[in-house]
This record gives sequence, C-alpha cells and structure tokens, in this order.
Amino acid sequence: MSNKKSNPMWGGRFTVGFDEVMEKINASIDFDKRLYNQDINGSIGHCKMLVLKKILDEADGRKIIEGLQQVRKEIESGQFNFRHDLEDIHMNVEARLFECIGEPAKRLHTARSRNDQVTTDLRLWIREAIDNLRDELKLLQSALINKAEEQYDTVMPGFTHMQTAQPVTLGHHLMAYVEMLTRDDERLEDCRKRVNTSPLGAAALAGTPYPTDPFLTASELAFDRVFRNSLDAVSDRDYVIEFLFACSLCAIHLSRLCEELVIWCSSQYKFIVLPDSFTTGSSIMPQKKNPDAAELIRAKSGRVTGNLIAMMMIMKAIPLSYNKDMQEDKETSFDSYDTLLISLKALSIMISEMTVNRQAMRNAAEAGFSVATDLADWLVTKLNIPFRKAHHITGSLVKIAEDKNIMLNQLTLEEMKSIEPSITEEVFNVLNVDFSVKSRKSFGGTAPDNVLFAIAEARKRVEIKQSNQVVAK
Amino acid sequence: MSNKKSNPMWGGRFTVGFDEVMEKINASIDFDKRLYNQDINGSIGHCKMLVLKKILDEADGRKIIEGLQQVRKEIESGQFNFRHDLEDIHMNVEARLFECIGEPAKRLHTARSRNDQVTTDLRLWIREAIDNLRDELKLLQSALINKAEEQYDTVMPGFTHMQTAQPVTLGHHLMAYVEMLTRDDERLEDCRKRVNTSPLGAAALAGTPYPTDPFLTASELAFDRVFRNSLDAVSDRDYVIEFLFACSLCAIHLSRLCEELVIWCSSQYKFIVLPDSFTTGSSIMPQKKNPDAAELIRAKSGRVTGNLIAMMMIMKAIPLSYNKDMQEDKETSFDSYDTLLISLKALSIMISEMTVNRQAMRNAAEAGFSVATDLADWLVTKLNIPFRKAHHITGSLVKIAEDKNIMLNQLTLEEMKSIEPSITEEVFNVLNVDFSVKSRKSFGGTAPDNVLFAIAEARKRVEIKQSNQVVAK
Amino acid sequence: MSNKKSNPMWGGRFTVGFDEVMEKINASIDFDKRLYNQDINGSIGHCKMLVLKKILDEADGRKIIEGLQQVRKEIESGQFNFRHDLEDIHMNVEARLFECIGEPAKRLHTARSRNDQVTTDLRLWIREAIDNLRDELKLLQSALINKAEEQYDTVMPGFTHMQTAQPVTLGHHLMAYVEMLTRDDERLEDCRKRVNTSPLGAAALAGTPYPTDPFLTASELAFDRVFRNSLDAVSDRDYVIEFLFACSLCAIHLSRLCEELVIWCSSQYKFIVLPDSFTTGSSIMPQKKNPDAAELIRAKSGRVTGNLIAMMMIMKAIPLSYNKDMQEDKETSFDSYDTLLISLKALSIMISEMTVNRQAMRNAAEAGFSVATDLADWLVTKLNIPFRKAHHITGSLVKIAEDKNIMLNQLTLEEMKSIEPSITEEVFNVLNVDFSVKSRKSFGGTAPDNVLFAIAEARKRVEIKQSNQVVAK
Amino acid sequence: MSNKKSNPMWGGRFTVGFDEVMEKINASIDFDKRLYNQDINGSIGHCKMLVLKKILDEADGRKIIEGLQQVRKEIESGQFNFRHDLEDIHMNVEARLFECIGEPAKRLHTARSRNDQVTTDLRLWIREAIDNLRDELKLLQSALINKAEEQYDTVMPGFTHMQTAQPVTLGHHLMAYVEMLTRDDERLEDCRKRVNTSPLGAAALAGTPYPTDPFLTASELAFDRVFRNSLDAVSDRDYVIEFLFACSLCAIHLSRLCEELVIWCSSQYKFIVLPDSFTTGSSIMPQKKNPDAAELIRAKSGRVTGNLIAMMMIMKAIPLSYNKDMQEDKETSFDSYDTLLISLKALSIMISEMTVNRQAMRNAAEAGFSVATDLADWLVTKLNIPFRKAHHITGSLVKIAEDKNIMLNQLTLEEMKSIEPSITEEVFNVLNVDFSVKSRKSFGGTAPDNVLFAIAEARKRVEIKQSNQVVAK
Repeated sequence: MSNKKSNPMWGGRFTVGFDEVMEKINASIDFDKRLYNQDINGSIGHCKMLVLKKILDEADGRKIIEGLQQVRKEIESGQFNFRHDLEDIHMNVEARLFECIGEPAKRLHTARSRNDQVTTDLRLWIREAIDNLRDELKLLQSALINKAEEQYDTVMPGFTHMQTAQPVTLGHHLMAYVEMLTRDDERLEDCRKRVNTSPLGAAALAGTPYPTDPFLTASELAFDRVFRNSLDAVSDRDYVIEFLFACSLCAIHLSRLCEELVIWCSSQYKFIVLPDSFTTGSSIMPQKKNPDAAELIRAKSGRVTGNLIAMMMIMKAIPLSYNKDMQEDKETSFDSYDTLLISLKALSIMISEMTVNRQAMRNAAEAGFSVATDLADWLVTKLNIPFRKAHHITGSLVKIAEDKNIMLNQLTLEEMKSIEPSITEEVFNVLNVDFSVKSRKSFGGTAPDNVLFAIAEARKRVEIKQSNQVVAK
Repeated sequence: MSNKKSNPMWGGRFTVGFDEVMEKINASIDFDKRLYNQDINGSIGHCKMLVLKKILDEADGRKIIEGLQQVRKEIESGQFNFRHDLEDIHMNVEARLFECIGEPAKRLHTARSRNDQVTTDLRLWIREAIDNLRDELKLLQSALINKAEEQYDTVMPGFTHMQTAQPVTLGHHLMAYVEMLTRDDERLEDCRKRVNTSPLGAAALAGTPYPTDPFLTASELAFDRVFRNSLDAVSDRDYVIEFLFACSLCAIHLSRLCEELVIWCSSQYKFIVLPDSFTTGSSIMPQKKNPDAAELIRAKSGRVTGNLIAMMMIMKAIPLSYNKDMQEDKETSFDSYDTLLISLKALSIMISEMTVNRQAMRNAAEAGFSVATDLADWLVTKLNIPFRKAHHITGSLVKIAEDKNIMLNQLTLEEMKSIEPSITEEVFNVLNVDFSVKSRKSFGGTAPDNVLFAIAEARKRVEIKQSNQVVAK
Repeated sequence: MSNKKSNPMWGGRFTVGFDEVMEKINASIDFDKRLYNQDINGSIGHCKMLVLKKILDEADGRKIIEGLQQVRKEIESGQFNFRHDLEDIHMNVEARLFECIGEPAKRLHTARSRNDQVTTDLRLWIREAIDNLRDELKLLQSALINKAEEQYDTVMPGFTHMQTAQPVTLGHHLMAYVEMLTRDDERLEDCRKRVNTSPLGAAALAGTPYPTDPFLTASELAFDRVFRNSLDAVSDRDYVIEFLFACSLCAIHLSRLCEELVIWCSSQYKFIVLPDSFTTGSSIMPQKKNPDAAELIRAKSGRVTGNLIAMMMIMKAIPLSYNKDMQEDKETSFDSYDTLLISLKALSIMISEMTVNRQAMRNAAEAGFSVATDLADWLVTKLNIPFRKAHHITGSLVKIAEDKNIMLNQLTLEEMKSIEPSITEEVFNVLNVDFSVKSRKSFGGTAPDNVLFAIAEARKRVEIKQSNQVVAK
Repeated sequence: MSNKKSNPMWGGRFTVGFDEVMEKINASIDFDKRLYNQDINGSIGHCKMLVLKKILDEADGRKIIEGLQQVRKEIESGQFNFRHDLEDIHMNVEARLFECIGEPAKRLHTARSRNDQVTTDLRLWIREAIDNLRDELKLLQSALINKAEEQYDTVMPGFTHMQTAQPVTLGHHLMAYVEMLTRDDERLEDCRKRVNTSPLGAAALAGTPYPTDPFLTASELAFDRVFRNSLDAVSDRDYVIEFLFACSLCAIHLSRLCEELVIWCSSQYKFIVLPDSFTTGSSIMPQKKNPDAAELIRAKSGRVTGNLIAMMMIMKAIPLSYNKDMQEDKETSFDSYDTLLISLKALSIMISEMTVNRQAMRNAAEAGFSVATDLADWLVTKLNIPFRKAHHITGSLVKIAEDKNIMLNQLTLEEMKSIEPSITEEVFNVLNVDFSVKSRKSFGGTAPDNVLFAIAEARKRVEIKQSNQVVAK
C-alpha cells in the first residue's frame, strides 16, 4: 500500500508506513507548527525539572536546552524544514533536536507523553491568546469611552423593539457596550484561571514512576495551578471550549454593535458616517458606501460560534482518556482567536473614526413622542396621579397628537385638559428631549452628568495592566 | 378581527384587542408563572425602596406589601387564576393586587418598567437555580468520591483511543470526573457573580427622574452588584447565555461519564452492573438490561446545548435595548435547569448503586500489553537506555508477544535478550499490573495511595456551604 | 430502593421496580401521548397484515381492531387514564387493550418490537406535520402574493448592505419571499419522500422469522417506500433531522422577513403600519406600538435551530442499532412543528393586514442616489462608454451632488458636462425612480409588468393540492 | 490613515484608500481564488449572451473570451499574481483581463454585478463539489458492499443500547450504512436541483434595462433552472446552507460508522483489525495501535456541523438583498467539502482493508442470551402461547441461566419445563445463532440470503453515472 517509512518515533511495532490519504487526514503539522514556541518552552521546562530531580544529568540537560534554542532560532528565521511524515510539531522539533545534539535528544521525552505535552502547549498558547484579546478588548473599550466622552450629551432616540422609546445620549449608548466588553474581559479572566493549570507530568494518562515534580514545571512555565488527576489532565478540553465560548459571546456583542452601525449609517437613519477606509463601493452602484467591515464582523459571530459548537459536539460523549478527536481543538482555537482579534482591531478604528451626525440624532429623538414617559412622570409627581392612571392619560394624549400628526408639546393646554383637567401650563417644561435626558439622573441613567461619571469610572477599568504582558509575550 | 378588550395595562392608545394567534405566540404566562415568587420579591424590594426614598407613602407601601404577600399565598395554594389576556406574570400579579387593595396598586410601578422588572425576576430565578445545581453537583461528586474510595485500588485498564494503554485504578478514573465537576462548579460560581447584578432601577431603558436608589433594592434582594448602565441593564442577556453554557458543559461531562457507563455494562466489558431501577427491559428480548437512564443523560447534553445555541443565535445581532426576541430566555433557562438537575440526581444514584466487577476489570487490565510502558521505563531507569530507544526495544518485544498471543511476562528471558542483551531477570518484577499502578505515584498519578490522598483533598471541596442555601430556598 | 411493581411488559426478569427519579427521566408518556392516533393506526395496520399472513387468526384480529378503536375513542373523549408506570404511549395503549379484550391483546405484538413501532408512529406523525406545514406555507405565500399584487408598482428603495441601491417595487420585494417559501416547500416535499418509508417489520433490529409482509403494512399505512435493512430501519433518525432542518431553514426565512417588518415599522422608516392586534404597547411608554409578534417569530428561528442541533449532536456518534438517546426525537419534532406552524399563521395575518405607506417608500427611493446605475447604464447605452468608465463618471457626479446635498436630477447639465462633455439633456429622462423600475424588465427584474407576470405564475404554484389532505387529517 | 490607492473598480467617489486592518478582514482573494475557473466560465457565458443579444459587439466579445482563457492559463500555470488590493477573484481576473486586452475588458461587466456574479461562481463550484462527493459516496458504498459480500454470513451480535440483542450478520450490519449513504446521496441530489439554478442576470438586485436573456447564460453554464426574482437571486444562500446540511448529516453517518470501528478494534471487542496505514502508535506505549483516522473522521462531524451553524446563524435575520455577511459562504463550503471528501476517501480504504475476526464476533454473538427472542418466538409459533406471555416465560428462563452463568441451550429440558411444562426437546433446535440469523428472512431481515439479495440490489444503485462527470470536471 505504501512504501513510506514508518514513523520512527513509534518504535518497532509497525511494519507498514503511512498512506497518503492518512497523512492528509492525520498530519497536524500544517497548523500546529504555530505552537512551536510553546512546545519548545514546554520542553525546556520539562528538561529543567528532569535535571533538578536528577532524572537527567546536567550535561545532557544543557545540551537539550541549547539544542532546543537552536531549533527555535531555525524556525523563527524561516530555515526550519517542517516534515509531514513527522506528523506534528512535537515530533518535528524532537527529530531536529536529535539531528543537532544526538543521543541526549532521546532522553528528553522521559516521564512525558505527547498526551500531556500537546495539552501543555495549547494551554500556553491560549493563555497568551487570552492576554492579547484582553489587551485588544481594552483598546476597543478606550475607543468607545473616548467617543462617548465626545458625545456625552448628544441626544438620540433610545430604542426598544426598534421603536423610539425615550431620549438618551449617544455617550450613554456607547457606554452600554463598554459594560458588555467588561463582562467579556471578566469571562476571559475567569477562563484564564482554568486555562492556566499545568497538565505536564500526567504523562500518557496515569502519571509516571519517575520522581518528577509537576509543581516545578508549572512554576517554570508560570502556570498558577497543577492538575490533580492525571486521567483528567490529558482528557480535559474544557479550557478550549470555555475559551471558544468567551470568544463567541464577545463576538456576539461586536455583532450587536455592528448591527447598530449598519443601521445608523443606512439612508433612513444617517446618524453616522463610517470612515471611507472601512467601507467599500459598489461595482454597479457608484453612490454606494457600504459598511462591509461592520457586516463582516457581524457575520464573524456565526463563524466563531460554529467553532464552539464543533468542539462541544466533538467532546460530547467520548470516553476517557485521550482520543484523537481532540486534535480539532487547535484549528478551532486558532480560527476563533484570529477572527476575534481582527474584529476588535477593526472596530476600534471604526469607532474612533466614525463621524456623528448630531442633528439627525436629535431630530429623530424629537420625533416619535419620546417624551411621553416624561409627561406620565410629571402627572405622577406633580398631580399625585397613580402611575398606571397617568400612563393611561398620556396614552390618550399621544393618540390625539398622532392623529393630528404633531408632537406632544404642540398640543394646546385645552386639548390636554380635555383628557385630564388638572394639567397646568407647567407641563410644557418637561416636554423636550434635553429636559428628558437631564432628568434621568438616577444611578446608571442617561443624564449627561451620569455619563461623565460613568466614563471616569470606566477609564480606570480599561487601563491595560502591564503585568499581563510579561507572560504573554 | 377581534373583539377582545385591549390589555388594560397599556393605557388608552389601542383600539383593537388581541388576536387569538397573537395571544398564542405572545403570551408567556404559561411558562413565566414559574417566576411568581421572584416577581413578588422583586416588587416588595422595589416598594420598600420607594417608601424609603419617599416616592411612595408608608401607608400605600404597607398595603402593597401585604397585598403582594396575599397574592403569593393565593398562587402557592393553587387558588390563583392565571389569565392569558394579561399576558405575563407581572401583569397577572399586578392586576390581582389591584383587585385586592385598589388604587395603591397603581403606584407600585412608579420608576419601574417591565423591562427592568422581567430581567430582575429572571436573575433571581437563575441565581437560585445555580445554587441548587451546585448543591446537586456536590452530591454527585460525593457519590463519585465514595465509590472511588470503595474502589481506590481496583485495577482496570486505562484507555486512550479506547485502546488499553496502562493500568489505572477505578478510584483514579472516577476521581477524574470529580475534577471535571469541580470545574463546572467553579464556572457556575463565576457565572453567579455576573448573574447576581441588579438591573432594577434602569426602568424602561434610560433610568428615571425619580430619586430612586438602586443600591437599596439590590441590597434588599441580596444582589452583589448594581447595573452601571441602564441601556445595558435591560438589554443584557449574557447571564442567561453564560448560565446555559455552564449547564451545557456540565451536561457534556455527564454525557462522557454515561458513555463510559454504557460501554462498561456492555456484554463485551461487563465491568459494572447498573441498578435494576435505572435500566429497562425489552419488549422483544427478555434478556436485555438496557442502560436507558445513562443513554438519556448522554442525549440530554444535545438538548441543553440546543438551548444554548438558540439563545446565542437570538441575541446575535439585535440592536439595543430591549427587544421581544429576548422572551425566549425563560423557556431555555427552565428547560436546561430541569434537564441538568434530573440528570445529576439520576447519576448520583446510579454511581452509588452500581456494582463493580473487579475481576473483569483486572482481567482486562492484564490483557493488551498494558505494562509495556513499565518495561520501557525499566530499560531507561535500570539500564540507562535513552527513552526513545527503550521505547523501540519494547515495541519489538510487544510484537513478539503479540505474534505468539501471550502476555509480556510470558516471554522468556532469552526472547527478551534476543532484542536487548542487557535485560536481566529483574525485569519480570515490573511486568504486572499491581506493580504498575503502585509505581505511578507522581503527583496526580494513579497509585492507590495517591487516590486516597486525592479523595481526602476532594472531600473538603464538596462540602455544601450552608450559606448558599439561605437565598436559594 | 423502590417497591413499585416492575413494568409488567418486560417479562419476569426484573426484581426491582422503577425509581422515582428514573421514572421522571425515562417516562415519555407526557409527550408521546401525542402519537396516540399514529400508534393505533400502526397497530391496526400491523394486525391486518398478521391476519392476512395467517400469523393471527381472524377472530383475534377483529377483537384487536375493535379494541384499538375503542381505546382511541376513550383517548379522544378524554376518558383515558395515561399511566406513568407504563412509560410510553405504546404500553399504555396495549395495557388498556388487554383490559378491554383480554388474551388476544397479548398477540398483537407478535413479529413487532417497540423499536420498529415507535419509529413508525413518529414517521406517520411527521408526515402529517409536513402536510400541514406545506398547507400553511401556501397560505402565507398567498398572503404575500395578494399583498404583492396590491403593491405591484409601489416604488421603494432596493437595499444592499442596508444602503439604498436601486429602486424596486414592494411587489417585487414581497415576491422574493414567495420564492424562498417555494424552496422550503420543495425541501419539505423532498424530505417527505424519505419520511414516508415504512420501518414496520424490522422488529427489534434483525427482522423476524414470522412470514410477515412489510409491503402490506406499508400499503395499509400509505407509506411510499419500505425499509431495506432492518438495522437501519430501527436506528435511522435522518428523517427527523431532515425535518428539523427544513423547519429551521424556513424559520430563518421568516426571521428575515420579520427583521424587515421590524425595520419597516421603525420610526426612521415608517414604511408600514402593522395591525394593532399584532403589536403591543409599553407599560411605561404609552406611545409605543411594538412589533412583538414579528420579533418573536424572528427569535423562533433560534429555537428551531436549537432543536436541530440537539438532534444532530445526539445522533453524532452512536453505534447501531436502537439507543435510548433517540427518544429526544419526539419533543424536538413537536416543538419545531408547533413553533413553525404558529409563526406561519401569525405572519399570514400580519402580511394581509399590514398597511403600506406608499409615500414614505417613494420618498426613501428618491433619496440616496438610487438612480445612479440608471445614469451609468445611459452612458453605456447612449454614449457607448465602456461600463467601467461610465461607472467612474457616475461616481464623480454622485460626489458632486452629495457635496451639494442635492439629488442627481438636480444637477445642471453644465455640472454634468464638466465631468463628461458628451452628456446631453436627454439624460434627465432616466433620472427618476418610476423610469428606473419600469426599465428593469429583464426576466425576473423589478418592472411592474414583470411583477404581475411573476404573480400569475406563482399563484399556480401555491394552490393547495387536496390530495395531500387525505392522509394528513 | 492610509495612502494606498483607492480600489480602481469602484469609481471616483472614494478619497481615502484601504486600511491594512480592513484589507485583512475584507479581502477574500486568499480563499475565493479557488473559484477562478467558475468565475472565468461564468464570464465567458455572460459575454456570449451579451454578444448574442447584441449588447456587445462580436469583436469585443471575441477578445474578451480569448483574454479570459489566457488569464485561466496563467492561473493554472501558477504565473498569475493575485493581488490583495483587488480584494477578490472577480476583480483580480477583470483587472488582468484589462492588462491583456485593454478597453473591451471594461465592457464585460455590462448588465452584471458582483452580486449575481459571485453567487453564480459559488453555485457552479458547489454543483461540482456535489458531483464529486456523490462519486466518492458511491466508492465508499462499493467498499461497504464488497466487504458485506465477503462477510455476508459472518455471525455477530446485533446490539441495541450497546447490549447484545439478537445475532445478525456482519454483512447485514455493513449494508445498514449503505442505506444511510444512499439517503445522503439522495439528499445531495435533491440539493443539487436547487443549487443548479442560475442567478446570472439579476444584476445588482433589481434586474437590468439591457435586453439580456438569463436563459441563454443558464444554458451555456448547464444550469437547469433560472432565478425567478432578482432580489431573491442575489440574497439567497439556501443552496449553501442546504449543501452544508447534506454534508453534515453524511458526516454524522461516517461518525457513527467510525464510532463502531473504534469500538470494534478495542481490546474488549477485537472484532476487527484496522490496516496499519490507518492507525498510529504511541510515543510512550509501544503496544498501542490507535484508530486515529477513525477518531478524526468521527470528530470531523462536529467541524462540518459547526460550519452549518455558522451559516444558519449568519443568514438568520439579515434583510434583503445582498449583505456582506454572506461572504462567509465560501470558506464554510470549501472546508466542509474538503473535510467530507477526505473522510470518505479514508473510510473507503479502511473498510476495504480491515481484517475481520470472525471467531471473536461469533463468540460474542453466542454470549449474552442473544437467542432469547428465538425461544420466545418458538413458544408463540409452536405452542401458540400469546407473545407477551411467551416473553414472560423466556425472561424467567434467562434469569435461571444467568444465575447459573450458562447459555440458554445449556439449560436442561427439566429446568425449562419447570417454567413452562409444555416445552419440548425440539426447542433446542432454535437455540443457536446460525439458526437464528437464517430464520430472520423477512424482507430486509438479517438472513444471509437476504443480505445477498440486498447486495445485488444495492450494487445497481451505486454505479457512478458518467453523465454527472461531464459538467463536474
């Protein structure tokens, strides 16, 4: 069937080599080479522990570490020849190590297995991915905060059911997304705790008879926790799924924001103008300025969620411990990370550079009886009418105004009194959008002063902690 | 089209009543009545705040609270008449409150909206659901730990790729699931932080001009945090999605365990016997003892994940703030909770009552060359052969044994020496499964003493904290 | 643990009865009683075959059929006592049959198993569900066609990227949905072919030694095909998954339509007014008229897709043949059917009763340079300028008009000539929306005459074939 | 921000070039270059129609077609320089065409838009993908049929709930998968009908004023149908979703088969040996022979389903007509196709080359009381005992045998009579697995003669029709 040499790493058992189809379906080197740095760091950590625990002698240890650093240089300089027949990054690195340093290379894998090695590599990679995403999240939050500050008192319609409900400020609206992203950041932080658990030392599945110390390798690799059960260590991919989930929910938030950007720059809204650099033209309709980037980011939430479902479905009912099915963990993780990262970057620029059409927003806020609640509240506060009754009165007045196609503050006092005789002239004070937004100064409300307060508070949150960076890079 | 009366809560604007089809698609009372207790508690909390902030006078406040408690009694005693025309639990409760206490009932909704009310109710419900699930998780962990203790030194094959790899103990295997469930418990705890944020006070979407104090209501309802942005407060359903996700990942763990139970009680394994009470017979094959409960729990992971996807897809691109689409949040939450809860309960009993066939497990462990790694490790440790070379020698010996259809310890010393001359008689000491599991005493490994250590450590984790219970019940 | 009697149908093997938890997780009678009619029809068909093939004597056959018809009457009149301890509809019916007719009841299950029985029932149910959905689809198509006819020449903006692109007619726009629904109808029809395959006669999994004739039962139950492999017959749930998929894709179409309805009735568009009976008010904002039904239908696409994913995940890797996991097939099917049916019904009414604001649509079409393509096409056709160059010229003219905030037909001829000197007065003929839509008379284009042609053609397609009805009801 | 030149295809409107981030998120050329052949064929078809309808003069038409063929040669010979700044395959081809032939290139896009062009290309690509997959499906079916013929009377246990139920033959078991794949083939065929609909001529969204003939282009490109509504033509991605679904359900079938292969080659079953070339060894456990390819194929069902969900979620609620979100259609289609194709190829080889351990299968079939149903059927047929009672008697006998740890045919006649006195010696004839499988000769049953019949019938179905190939290649 095949006359290719059997993979030399598996020992002497196999008499037939790999089939071409198998190589195509099985080899992961095309994508897992992205883990080269984690793999080499993991091996160095493992090697140091072996030396400290006297499982490996110092001279061999030194050669191995120097050899691994040479391999890393070769990869980073583009000189490394990745071989499909060696299947994955682990075997590629180890085989090259043997070419470089000979016999000691064969001692590196003592008390270790590809099962704990591969999940160590991926955990290190995802940990860094989380740190990078959190930095990028904070940059987007900063862009939103800055834009919110610029527009802290810009009046726009607040929508429910896409119907004008009550006036809000654009600053307040943008700050809602800062809150969503803060939760995403929290979720990534929570996820990181579990990602940052060392599985190294679980060996194939059962632990090892060598006097290893998993706490030493964990410390060397800056893991916060150490696995507690070797079977679980090699069969757990919760950290991948949880990472994919945190990415998906964040992507859904970006999708919501982009849905709004698309709507806001539609011909009917014209609330904003997106920068030319993030829109495209049409090959047949020259007047078009299409919000392609926003649409694509909106769509990416589907892609990222697809990755999540893939991994959930894969892990659904597989028995312990390691099964090859898990190899799908890498492409899904890489793709979700890349997709979310570029989405965050693009949105940061789009938010920073978008132009706001304040007049269009104000006009829209003034239409649609957005101050009806203010009227109802005035009836409650000033005339002591029970809320439900005030609500009923207001509804009747809205109906009159709507039939006449006028705004509420264009009703005459007589018309008002015809529904509720105790209404006075004073009511007209509350029937404008500026009064409305300024009045909503309850905690977390839309009043411009509240927005400024929220901005100041949020700024503290989004400062990127330098401490994260050390491990990540 | 319809001559039914317009919903009296919406005020005077609508001239036509509800269509029957609309009622069927729109009314949520059939499922959201499950929130009655949270709705009443939320209203009491809101009412107390209104009184404290002098937005409502004390006498009215007292009447409202007494009225709400009466309504609760009516519901709990089954006397309450839930009305479809009143659409949801909020309107049903308020309408009945008006019948009971009259005018003051109309003042309860001051400075509040259904938008912040409904999400308050659901947050309270999910918080309790989390607490209940966490208790149930700990009960299942206890069942696993007890069974692990009973079987702490029972030798069984450890599998990778469903192939016999190395011997492990059943105790160690069961403890792997305790670790998974600990992560589920952590995730639910992390999720609870975000669930336990009060949205009450956001009103419709923009906050309110009344001098409310959202911190008072939050404190009254035992929320740990208060919303920071009113638009976000009413449009956020992250907490639902995150809850559904935590349920789904836990369900996937249960599915993995059930997959193993199904395999273990298959005719070919016979590792365990499940209790009669959790198996069923066949209408045509009287000898069958089918692990139905395990299969159903395995399947439920699909159902629970389906609920997650539903909500992710729904929230994917809807603009701010509240949209009616979000109404799907309740049925998905209820269904995932009910499904996971009964799955946990059933598994706790099944694990406790299953009978282990130790001999079958041992026989299986002894087959399949499970001690090959021990042989390779002996070559490394005793003969100082590099690991990769030791591995190659072992592979050749396995091939000889396999061709002869014997176990490794049935090879003669001469056969061994034919591959590696320096092998001595001493090697036979390591070629048995008891030696193998005992030797794997690295941290987190399968050695029986390690299992006992892990059990003691895990017991501390799974004690149910009584403090959780207060709010939950 | 339990002293409840063992299920009497499983024979004498079990010594312990069912646990309460198990009953709760295992019993399907609460939902599968919905299959009573299919179950009784299936049993009658099976019984007739047994008699014809002389496996059962005629007298017994007659008693069984009369008994089953009596059981059906009891169920339909509400007198039937569904018992949880009998687990499912099959056992409930058979147990009651025994009470009614005694010994012969015990002969009904000859040459049959619950494995082929349950999938027969569900196939019959889904077949009817498909027929009902197809009828309902055609009613919605009729509503769309009627509205399209009413609005066949109503000019509105055609959108790409939510940007005004070219003018279209509302009739044309609505007819696009008729096409989508035609594909849904086709998919349901294709699916029905595979659904309508009889599995009856596969028995438990291997066929039967009795001289049965599966073609007789198939014919009796109006199945078009007969299973070809008994193992496949009892383990196949493709027909469920395919049904759930067809429902999901249809629900996605309805979701797209509802997204448009929600946008069209927003304050910024005001293209339509939905009937009061399908909108709701707000408890705090009396002016609101929220398109709740449209939002809910939009959301239901998530729910229905969730059901699909659930079943795909469940079937993903289970070995042959029947596994209890499959029991989830029923609730997912029922829920997707109910959800899609009510969505279709609601949309039919909403489309029929919505009011179109022609002026708002026309105004929107005239804004946004929607005739730019017409200008470019004029340059190509009249001045023989290559399309790409004509496109470039048009873009420059749009830029001038946009900077001046005027429409293209408000540019002077001089301004036009400044970009392309050969432009003549004649160009102004094409710069209006009525000309534009009328000119697009290529096949399938938006010209009003084309729309009328498409309407006539579509009307033929949506006539409900009476033949479908016979089996369905 | 950027000083890169604006995309020259969009005309003169844009003053700022593309940002680097935007290019990264927006450019599709890295993946859509895979559509080069379809794009060129589509353009040639469009060009021919323009000439025939005299929209383009013959000389220009000839130059364009020759130019396009030259571009194709450049691409196929690897000389073509794909440019990111030209964004997609359409612009890359057209820009190069202009370099080759000058001015006439600018006339090619007359009466066309990228909106109808891109969906034409993808439809052509998916049509070919379907044809290729159907061929590959048939090859796997052939492999299964050949193996089934080889093993048509090999007795193995038939399982339900993974419990031994009744004996079946391996031939019968394998033929169950042939049935599943036939349904997959049917679904792809049904899907192909809808895929094979020409959207060319819809232009941007509204049709065109040029006297085009969409039926001519459809005919030229071998489309079976022509779009009926231009808005639908450019916004429909049903064909993508339906294709992804058909791939997913097929992948789920392959996953089920692979689940069985993994189980069958486990140490406890040893029913089969997979070819060395499709298994891998272990770096730490030299004896392992891991069914990696089967596990990976099992996992791929998750990946392919993930792609489906992505597209369903993306299309869920986007309004008409074209939106950039749809660009995700290509990567999902390519990935699902590639994944399914390699899975089919790998499985064909694995099935063909796997070795069956007949003795192990027979031994397993004889254990587990698999002939209990035969006993019950004997009681019904020979002693005229009602089925349910016969079932009860059998259950009691199984219990006795199980308690004694013997097989049913090792019970004495006296023991049998102690439960049912009328049992005679003759019963022992039916208590063996060969008798059992031979007796199940009802249509579709497992009797070896039936299997041979089914094989002959299936062979006809899986002959690859050469007619498909013409268009596909």
